[in-house]
Amino acid sequence: MKVLSFGEMMLRLKTPGNERILQTQSYEATYGGAEANVAVSLALLGDEVSYLSKFPNNPLGQAAKSTLQKYGVDTSKILTGGDRLGIYFFEKGTSVRSTNVVYDRAYSAFSQVAQTEFDWPTIFKDVDYFYFSGITPAISPDLEQAALAACEYCKQQGIPVVCDLNYRAKMWSPEQAQKVISKIMEYVTICIAHDEDFEATLGIQAFDGDSSRGIEQKESFKAAMKQVQADYPNCKMVASILRNIYSVEASQWTALLLTDETFYETATYDMHVMEGVAAGDAFGAGLLHGLLHDYSSEKLVKFALAASVLKLTITGDLNLVSEAEINQVMESNSGARLAR
Amino acid sequence: MKVLSFGEMMLRLKTPGNERILQTQSYEATYGGAEANVAVSLALLGDEVSYLSKFPNNPLGQAAKSTLQKYGVDTSKILTGGDRLGIYFFEKGTSVRSTNVVYDRAYSAFSQVAQTEFDWPTIFKDVDYFYFSGITPAISPDLEQAALAACEYCKQQGIPVVCDLNYRAKMWSPEQAQKVISKIMEYVTICIAHDEDFEATLGIQAFDGDSSRGIEQKESFKAAMKQVQADYPNCKMVASILRNIYSVEASQWTALLLTDETFYETATYDMHVMEGVAAGDAFGAGLLHGLLHDYSSEKLVKFALAASVLKLTITGDLNLVSEAEINQVMESNSGARLAR
Amino acid sequence: MKVLSFGEMMLRLKTPGNERILQTQSYEATYGGAEANVAVSLALLGDEVSYLSKFPNNPLGQAAKSTLQKYGVDTSKILTGGDRLGIYFFEKGTSVRSTNVVYDRAYSAFSQVAQTEFDWPTIFKDVDYFYFSGITPAISPDLEQAALAACEYCKQQGIPVVCDLNYRAKMWSPEQAQKVISKIMEYVTICIAHDEDFEATLGIQAFDGDSSRGIEQKESFKAAMKQVQADYPNCKMVASILRNIYSVEASQWTALLLTDETFYETATYDMHVMEGVAAGDAFGAGLLHGLLHDYSSEKLVKFALAASVLKLTITGDLNLVSEAEINQVMESNSGARLAR
Amino acid sequence: MKVLSFGEMMLRLKTPGNERILQTQSYEATYGGAEANVAVSLALLGDEVSYLSKFPNNPLGQAAKSTLQKYGVDTSKILTGGDRLGIYFFEKGTSVRSTNVVYDRAYSAFSQVAQTEFDWPTIFKDVDYFYFSGITPAISPDLEQAALAACEYCKQQGIPVVCDLNYRAKMWSPEQAQKVISKIMEYVTICIAHDEDFEATLGIQAFDGDSSRGIEQKESFKAAMKQVQADYPNCKMVASILRNIYSVEASQWTALLLTDETFYETATYDMHVMEGVAAGDAFGAGLLHGLLHDYSSEKLVKFALAASVLKLTITGDLNLVSEAEINQVMESNSGARLAR
Amino acid sequence: MKVLSFGEMMLRLKTPGNERILQTQSYEATYGGAEANVAVSLALLGDEVSYLSKFPNNPLGQAAKSTLQKYGVDTSKILTGGDRLGIYFFEKGTSVRSTNVVYDRAYSAFSQVAQTEFDWPTIFKDVDYFYFSGITPAISPDLEQAALAACEYCKQQGIPVVCDLNYRAKMWSPEQAQKVISKIMEYVTICIAHDEDFEATLGIQAFDGDSSRGIEQKESFKAAMKQVQADYPNCKMVASILRNIYSVEASQWTALLLTDETFYETATYDMHVMEGVAAGDAFGAGLLHGLLHDYSSEKLVKFALAASVLKLTITGDLNLVSEAEINQVMESNSGARLAR
Amino acid sequence: MKVLSFGEMMLRLKTPGNERILQTQSYEATYGGAEANVAVSLALLGDEVSYLSKFPNNPLGQAAKSTLQKYGVDTSKILTGGDRLGIYFFEKGTSVRSTNVVYDRAYSAFSQVAQTEFDWPTIFKDVDYFYFSGITPAISPDLEQAALAACEYCKQQGIPVVCDLNYRAKMWSPEQAQKVISKIMEYVTICIAHDEDFEATLGIQAFDGDSSRGIEQKESFKAAMKQVQADYPNCKMVASILRNIYSVEASQWTALLLTDETFYETATYDMHVMEGVAAGDAFGAGLLHGLLHDYSSEKLVKFALAASVLKLTITGDLNLVSEAEINQVMESNSGARLAR
Repeated sequence: MKVLSFGEMMLRLKTPGNERILQTQSYEATYGGAEANVAVSLALLGDEVSYLSKFPNNPLGQAAKSTLQKYGVDTSKILTGGDRLGIYFFEKGTSVRSTNVVYDRAYSAFSQVAQTEFDWPTIFKDVDYFYFSGITPAISPDLEQAALAACEYCKQQGIPVVCDLNYRAKMWSPEQAQKVISKIMEYVTICIAHDEDFEATLGIQAFDGDSSRGIEQKESFKAAMKQVQADYPNCKMVASILRNIYSVEASQWTALLLTDETFYETATYDMHVMEGVAAGDAFGAGLLHGLLHDYSSEKLVKFALAASVLKLTITGDLNLVSEAEINQVMESNSGARLAR
Repeated sequence: MKVLSFGEMMLRLKTPGNERILQTQSYEATYGGAEANVAVSLALLGDEVSYLSKFPNNPLGQAAKSTLQKYGVDTSKILTGGDRLGIYFFEKGTSVRSTNVVYDRAYSAFSQVAQTEFDWPTIFKDVDYFYFSGITPAISPDLEQAALAACEYCKQQGIPVVCDLNYRAKMWSPEQAQKVISKIMEYVTICIAHDEDFEATLGIQAFDGDSSRGIEQKESFKAAMKQVQADYPNCKMVASILRNIYSVEASQWTALLLTDETFYETATYDMHVMEGVAAGDAFGAGLLHGLLHDYSSEKLVKFALAASVLKLTITGDLNLVSEAEINQVMESNSGARLAR
Repeated sequence: MKVLSFGEMMLRLKTPGNERILQTQSYEATYGGAEANVAVSLALLGDEVSYLSKFPNNPLGQAAKSTLQKYGVDTSKILTGGDRLGIYFFEKGTSVRSTNVVYDRAYSAFSQVAQTEFDWPTIFKDVDYFYFSGITPAISPDLEQAALAACEYCKQQGIPVVCDLNYRAKMWSPEQAQKVISKIMEYVTICIAHDEDFEATLGIQAFDGDSSRGIEQKESFKAAMKQVQADYPNCKMVASILRNIYSVEASQWTALLLTDETFYETATYDMHVMEGVAAGDAFGAGLLHGLLHDYSSEKLVKFALAASVLKLTITGDLNLVSEAEINQVMESNSGARLAR
Repeated sequence: MKVLSFGEMMLRLKTPGNERILQTQSYEATYGGAEANVAVSLALLGDEVSYLSKFPNNPLGQAAKSTLQKYGVDTSKILTGGDRLGIYFFEKGTSVRSTNVVYDRAYSAFSQVAQTEFDWPTIFKDVDYFYFSGITPAISPDLEQAALAACEYCKQQGIPVVCDLNYRAKMWSPEQAQKVISKIMEYVTICIAHDEDFEATLGIQAFDGDSSRGIEQKESFKAAMKQVQADYPNCKMVASILRNIYSVEASQWTALLLTDETFYETATYDMHVMEGVAAGDAFGAGLLHGLLHDYSSEKLVKFALAASVLKLTITGDLNLVSEAEINQVMESNSGARLAR
Repeated sequence: MKVLSFGEMMLRLKTPGNERILQTQSYEATYGGAEANVAVSLALLGDEVSYLSKFPNNPLGQAAKSTLQKYGVDTSKILTGGDRLGIYFFEKGTSVRSTNVVYDRAYSAFSQVAQTEFDWPTIFKDVDYFYFSGITPAISPDLEQAALAACEYCKQQGIPVVCDLNYRAKMWSPEQAQKVISKIMEYVTICIAHDEDFEATLGIQAFDGDSSRGIEQKESFKAAMKQVQADYPNCKMVASILRNIYSVEASQWTALLLTDETFYETATYDMHVMEGVAAGDAFGAGLLHGLLHDYSSEKLVKFALAASVLKLTITGDLNLVSEAEINQVMESNSGARLAR
Repeated sequence: MKVLSFGEMMLRLKTPGNERILQTQSYEATYGGAEANVAVSLALLGDEVSYLSKFPNNPLGQAAKSTLQKYGVDTSKILTGGDRLGIYFFEKGTSVRSTNVVYDRAYSAFSQVAQTEFDWPTIFKDVDYFYFSGITPAISPDLEQAALAACEYCKQQGIPVVCDLNYRAKMWSPEQAQKVISKIMEYVTICIAHDEDFEATLGIQAFDGDSSRGIEQKESFKAAMKQVQADYPNCKMVASILRNIYSVEASQWTALLLTDETFYETATYDMHVMEGVAAGDAFGAGLLHGLLHDYSSEKLVKFALAASVLKLTITGDLNLVSEAEINQVMESNSGARLAR
């Protein structure tokens, strides 16, 4: 069972600690991106996974590729060429100061790829699951077309399509997103959506925008998840994380899964967040891992959420944890004792 | 509209993370001081501000001056000469271990300045507001005289005097402070005082010393603020931060402003404190910025407190935030989501 | 009054911040070990203390010894020789991710010591208290014999034996531990035991294993402590820390002391834990310091717990705090204000 | 006397020590660019200097601007807007491994500036010298036109134009360069050219490309310098550095100045190079400083070369040295003793 | 064409800069070992290579394996199990202070492997070249037997055996080495030996031990190389690096290759050494790469030496350079200019 | 045999690498001072040594004392009190840029000591050698008197006085120095003097100030050394290092010893200097170690110089090397090979 993950990987430049860009004299350099994060998670969980993207033929492209290889992702399908690797600058906030991201991803090799560069039959050989997020079609018209073509090919071949809607307001407007995502959703088998994703990409109201009381809006989320399946009958499963965010550090996390007309819920975690990025990707990877290993629906969403909250304890975009560690969090709902 | 800020800037040597001086092998070097912090805040908020002090003619004095210039402060009035730049060593505490400061500021160039070195008419040319804190007159008898002379000159020229009483027990006793501050208060137009400042520098009881329940003593603070105006009729405005401090990280912050016989109050922030220094200076700068831009009294104190709590999320003495960021905190009273 | 502390010191290699071993490119190197930690604490509190162990004759052994000397521990009794210094790798967890320790202590110089290398009459000359923890006899059969021989010698000489039972599941099973510790307990004058130590090393049930509600089990702990004295009449004092652990950062700490058939209790500290290791050693050192200075039983346990919670704010295994700082925490039960 | 320097400033991301991009986990962040380097040098030498460029309206643009302000450069003429700040990645070589630069400067705010954005009469108000390098016109057709328009305006106003030809093979071909530079040279009063600059930008042969014996080709350089004046009679002065480069660390440096039909030469420095970038910019700044202060031709070139070799001892693009330090090197031709 | 490399990989802990173990508070952590270094070099040069070793099933074993994967080495043949990963501590010397290595490799998983764990027919499937160094058989009797068994299997299958004799005085005596290596040499097709390797492992005198004049002893080396082929007729090729070492930084490097009864020599490089480890492994990898691509004998030794001297400019055990970079050094015999 | 070393220890704050104070954001913190350096060297060589100074009663004084203890120096005689620990800022130069030291040592606890605080009979109990350098009497009139009193006491007790004249132009003028040192020299048994020390402190011409050719002036040094003995008949031994300094990194070192009317000379070392401080202190300690162990005059000066040049390879003021390492350099006059 092999997964193909399709998207952009960037150089992430994070200031040390909580420094601001204005004061820093150094950056911590890692590599990440929604679909690359999912690929690395799966590889660390022992699954076979291939990543599809385009990297420039320079040391930064080589470093991004090496990062994927380090953790066991198949990089043989990655295209090479183009001008530059996308970059994002990352200022970790704390307390009342929000985390701030400065994107410098325009003109990246991946954003300049032509849809004709993808030979789908070759790419999908031996692939059992296809994953991408809403970021990929948001990058360029060619990538929108490429994502649709890939979905169409999956439909023909019976390959399930897993999509995290992943709305990014800095990349497109709700109008633009809805126009594209509504087409993509025709092909999506498993849909992941959080927070404002429902409304921004599907026009379905789930969340009123008050981050401090997402969990209180569970019924509204459930209604939205049902509406997704009503609107897109091909969609067998909808999953969503709900959060109450009190500050950069303090938040509560729970998750919902809708499948076979049944809602599966998890416990709620009280989190002290070390780094609040890529938890959604970790959730998606947890879900995919469960699907690959035929977890029950109940275990599926519990495992995915445990993977997700563990990501909040790891620095960098990649969820560097093992299946055993996810299971431990899932089972104990805690983890504070020192094993020695 | 231009502000003059008058005080001492020091080299701050902070151990990394929460290391103790006894174990550290390195220090993070920044520069700060109450009045310099206010000057930098104003410059970052887009205001014109000039800083007055005395720096030694060596690389450390040059570095302190360059720091001010970096953020846009006018350094042309700074005197040069003397032996050394003051230093303070900074051990950040955590939980039940208090933050500890080791001062090594004696014999600094500024502490050795002669009051005759200041040519007030030239210095105050084009100045619209004068700011200093109680630290400046605490440093030396010459600086006490200089502060008084500056105040006297301001009175003649109708320049408002903004003073943060800023009591430092390591610098002088309440008796010494009260003797000096009572003279200065005759000239102060806007008075900022927190916690023990009222009693130590003015002999007015506001706070019983229990840091865990400062906010509960709001009525006592209000009475003290009224007493300040009763004792010093020239004082048009009194502002104060009230806090409940539960540990080095956990505290609650609120503020009061008394003007035109009316009290203006803010919401209370639940804070996870990253670095608990210079928040009072950030408050003073926020107040000054509002005064320069004719904020309403209500907005004045809200903006000042939002600036102050943001400082608790920044490393170093300088409040490296923009007006937009302060407004965002002021309006949302939160800030935990990642903008991307 | 001089203490002898007997055990193993290791090189501790900690990843920076919360990094995982899999991602790190550097380690912070310090030295520690239960009995060495106790020795350093005592020296920093101004007490005379000698450390007994065996270090390899290489730069790592020299560095471990120098660390002890730095803080004032007498190292003249340490044996030299053997293959290597034990190492442990330390991944600090956060929130739901537990701290993880990878031991690489096998084949250390100390683990290979022969019991015949210890000349107890010479070693115990001028010694007034003997301290070791359950780790020492767990290391090797020779060290089990050496510990017993030392205890026997102490009994002859009337030297009180202080032992922290300190069960380590990675080192031995409850069956193995109980067989050894039951013999040792015949000689122990002051017994320190926490959490699972009672059951694992003595077969006495005190704690049900639920870390989030240790304090709620106070009566069960008290019963176990009484049982210890019933089983081992030579044991004049039993002390124990009780905790509610909510996450890696958040926990509550309290302590019990049983002596003269009376229980002495402390206040409960709400802690934000910076580094959750060696707090038990700090407790033991606090207890020993109080014994050396004839503290009342009430002050003894309060001082020991204040020392212990302060350790949670210090990086590294060594509790780098002064008696004045412990007293301040003990008296104020807080410490969040900045002294300046 | 005020200088205007016109060009691009970039974020420089250097791997620590001699690490490769492929292995690094962090970057040292500084800001630099040929014309910005010259501006900072002049400000540190006490001269008035204004910098003209365009920075994006984001934290990176703010940081670049603050860097200039820190060292005293007037930043009031800098335009704001556009997409991104250019970046360059810097791998410092050693011995036989060359230093490697990966440019990521395409699509920068400055590269996208329209020539119509520059209001030359306002910009040149109070300007006494105009400086730029061949990099500026190489960036875009609009900047080529802007450079020419600025030169034309200088001609009208009698403002001397100082230009470092600064050929960059990664930016344009000799054919492209010659077409542009030949037009610019009609306006240049003082021309700086090193190594391959003569041939690549002017088509005049000076250097055979063998870096290990540049100094041996002094006569060829002299002939080329004369040819420059023959071809461009407006050019009053030509200056050039000649080097023998033996390895990344080991090289010899000397310089030539042609003016009033006389050649002025300097001593030759045996250098141990710490960081071999921006030494040409330091030379240009040294020359400009001498011009501003009416140095003799002999002192002019000696001072410029001393400034240049000092840059080889400083990390970052900016030559953080004082006039006194340059004089000391110039006079002693050494500097190895520790002053204390 | 695929290479199998067989040996031990260790965690390397290097003090920062030139710090001593006694003073350091941190270590830079990388992974390396002679045969792993060769494998990574080949993978970076684009060759297929598989690595055979045994790693413990813990985060350190996982990190070592990930390092190999990062650079493209096939890790599927690595065995898992055993106690620990070997470690070596690395103090980089300078000038007259030699680099110092403290080995802590005893009891490693690889040293405890049983020869029966290796299934040679499966391991050598698809392998075209076999590489190991004299370190592997020096580790344990089982590894001596395993190396011999592997050689025997290669002989049967016609797989060439490349062996770097790589004498380590800290691991075995010349007597022990000669007894084992003389048996191994019966199978070796390509033999690499430097400095004291000839005498210590083969009893053939080549080098008098004076490191400052190795190159002067070229004739003696040549005679020894001939003797190797006389003693071991199966050995088709002998290669050796000769050096004059003047200090930790300053040395000269040249190389000899004997094949088809002809000696091939290279130019001599004057090196400023950044880190003097693993240059022999880089040489071996360069040789293997040339063999895989049918380089002429002349190009073979030149390429291998260029790879070797480039390693002296890279930090860590792994030679992180590309074929293009090696070619550039090989062709220019220099590399000091900055390409931009 | 026990040595007493008497002088000042300071906090040394060094910028990382070759950074300038103006650009740095951090300092590496170590502790050193001429006489403390000598004490640590002796302790590391296994000798008994006690250090006499005065440290402030704050964390910085505690850290300085702990540093001495770490390496085995007896700190029981150190006085406590006073305002501050002296500091010096250290910018390491390179090539033509000299290393720069910014002293901030005024008003230190030691500089404010009263001569009456020293109880010489108690201090000198069990002392066999007395060491100090010319820095101690240069600090204050009280320390001048204290040094003389100590010398007088040594004369009475027959304790040899070893003095390194150690002229510091930033502390006093030649006139001031000569007035004091001429009195001290009446008591000195072993005199160490380098470079300008002869002329500045004794008025005896040895060195013409040209650092690049100190060794060429050997005869002049010899004459001066003889003159020292002629002027001060109590002086049994004079030792001096002669250097040719070509740049911060490149220099040559040799040494002379005059005793029993015979000159003993050493080989000359070609050095690549990593950090050029405290090499004179290392020389003095080497000399003292040889005296304590009755080395021959020839071995004495060779050992002292080998110790001295090794210091040039160590970061920090303390010469962290062993006797075995000094012997290795002394015997091999090299050390560039890696022992493994």
